[in-house]
Amino acid sequence: MPEFRFYHPIEVRYGDLDPQGHLNNAKYLTYFEQARVHYLLHLGMFKEGQSFTNIGIILAEVKVTFLAPVQYGADVRVGMRISRLGDKSMTAEYTLMDAASNKELATGSAVLVGYDYRTNETIPIPQEWREKIVEFEKMVGF
Amino acid sequence: MPEFRFYHPIEVRYGDLDPQGHLNNAKYLTYFEQARVHYLLHLGMFKEGQSFTNIGIILAEVKVTFLAPVQYGADVRVGMRISRLGDKSMTAEYTLMDAASNKELATGSAVLVGYDYRTNETIPIPQEWREKIVEFEKMVGF
Amino acid sequence: MPEFRFYHPIEVRYGDLDPQGHLNNAKYLTYFEQARVHYLLHLGMFKEGQSFTNIGIILAEVKVTFLAPVQYGADVRVGMRISRLGDKSMTAEYTLMDAASNKELATGSAVLVGYDYRTNETIPIPQEWREKIVEFEKMVGF
Amino acid sequence: MPEFRFYHPIEVRYGDLDPQGHLNNAKYLTYFEQARVHYLLHLGMFKEGQSFTNIGIILAEVKVTFLAPVQYGADVRVGMRISRLGDKSMTAEYTLMDAASNKELATGSAVLVGYDYRTNETIPIPQEWREKIVEFEKMVGF
Repeated sequence: MPEFRFYHPIEVRYGDLDPQGHLNNAKYLTYFEQARVHYLLHLGMFKEGQSFTNIGIILAEVKVTFLAPVQYGADVRVGMRISRLGDKSMTAEYTLMDAASNKELATGSAVLVGYDYRTNETIPIPQEWREKIVEFEKMVGF
Repeated sequence: MPEFRFYHPIEVRYGDLDPQGHLNNAKYLTYFEQARVHYLLHLGMFKEGQSFTNIGIILAEVKVTFLAPVQYGADVRVGMRISRLGDKSMTAEYTLMDAASNKELATGSAVLVGYDYRTNETIPIPQEWREKIVEFEKMVGF
Repeated sequence: MPEFRFYHPIEVRYGDLDPQGHLNNAKYLTYFEQARVHYLLHLGMFKEGQSFTNIGIILAEVKVTFLAPVQYGADVRVGMRISRLGDKSMTAEYTLMDAASNKELATGSAVLVGYDYRTNETIPIPQEWREKIVEFEKMVGF
Repeated sequence: MPEFRFYHPIEVRYGDLDPQGHLNNAKYLTYFEQARVHYLLHLGMFKEGQSFTNIGIILAEVKVTFLAPVQYGADVRVGMRISRLGDKSMTAEYTLMDAASNKELATGSAVLVGYDYRTNETIPIPQEWREKIVEFEKMVGF
């Protein structure tokens, strides 16, 4: 498993479950999203109180691999890391773990593209973001 | 404000917000529901791992009064109390508070009716539940 | 049952159900909300493409009375009417009906307050809205 | 674009949008799921009124590629096809299209594994399902 330097805890809600009694598949993306927003806050790439339309990225692709059903009462944590940093896009990787046992319940990834929500155009990943990510993720070769 | 002996903390998720940037009205019921399930767990009226169709109550009525918009980043807690205990129904009251400032953001209530999910019929509130609620809420006159 | 001049059909989604196999209580508010936005569109009080922060009302109170569980496959329709029109607030009433049998499954209401999302202040219900609502609802005495 | 023989229309709800004003990424999975349940109903692999725990498949993997933001008012339809049919798993492909313009807004896929929800074990895709899918999708070589 790749190394994650950032984790965000999530409480599994009754409202996240579906008629099969498990965490509904769409909620995994909600959990990854919640970790993503907190990753941005943690690295200072987004500040509370700012408009969400100021976030300079948009999702291009997401993927989830389900390893084990998530039951109610199983509090979890989501790990996130940026594993690839290109000029106009970057790749985030996710892990969903049982918070108590550290058992991995799901993995995922997202391709994030630099985006200006005012002009609706793709833009390069801001240099300030690049520096923060490279430093936080201890990326080499940048 | 009535006295609440039970609180459950909730993290406001990005996925709980709507295009007006605030907590969406339907999510207040999700938050109350999450507090309700934990209230049942806390009093031993429901145990983790049990089927949710074993919970012997059904919602008859809910009400929410919105006092102030809930912003992202404003972690909250939900207070719940049983304020009325009838033969076949009971009334729960809720408060949604900012966890940091204790400012009340919303109040609510729910009428819960004893229900058998196998026969789809209303039933009396179980005697065991009555005793636990009376004791926990320090109700007098029962 | 009061007369409803506006109905909006809703498809019950698998994702709207909860572990008890029925429509989750919070989703009733989502259904009422969807009817409300379409009511505003229908009366020309809001236009597609406008920012939702331009809608000049905010929810002050909602109430739902559950009459019968909503099963998957039971397509429904939501009736909405404005039953009270005050200076700074108005009351909407809702009915949730089985689209096939017209059986009433839930009722509800909402208190809507005039609101300016830029200044975060309550405002009177706009005169233009008042006229449209009085005409549509065939209210007398205005 | 591959040929889709099955489409399901979806109304974009206000409650599906997020603070950036577009369809929230998690809702794409809800839309695909809704198409999937209706695909199963359409082919007779699942019947209304049956318990959802009788559905003999579980999700192993999902993927979404976002092509254009989905705005409110843009009613959509989801195409689904089974493109691969293995012994114990199969692959579904999805397209999300603007219902009016037929513009493709997203694509996706899901790996579905035969599953017994009573024993919590993977099982082969039932022979009856295989026959229905091969016939409906006009698969050759089976």
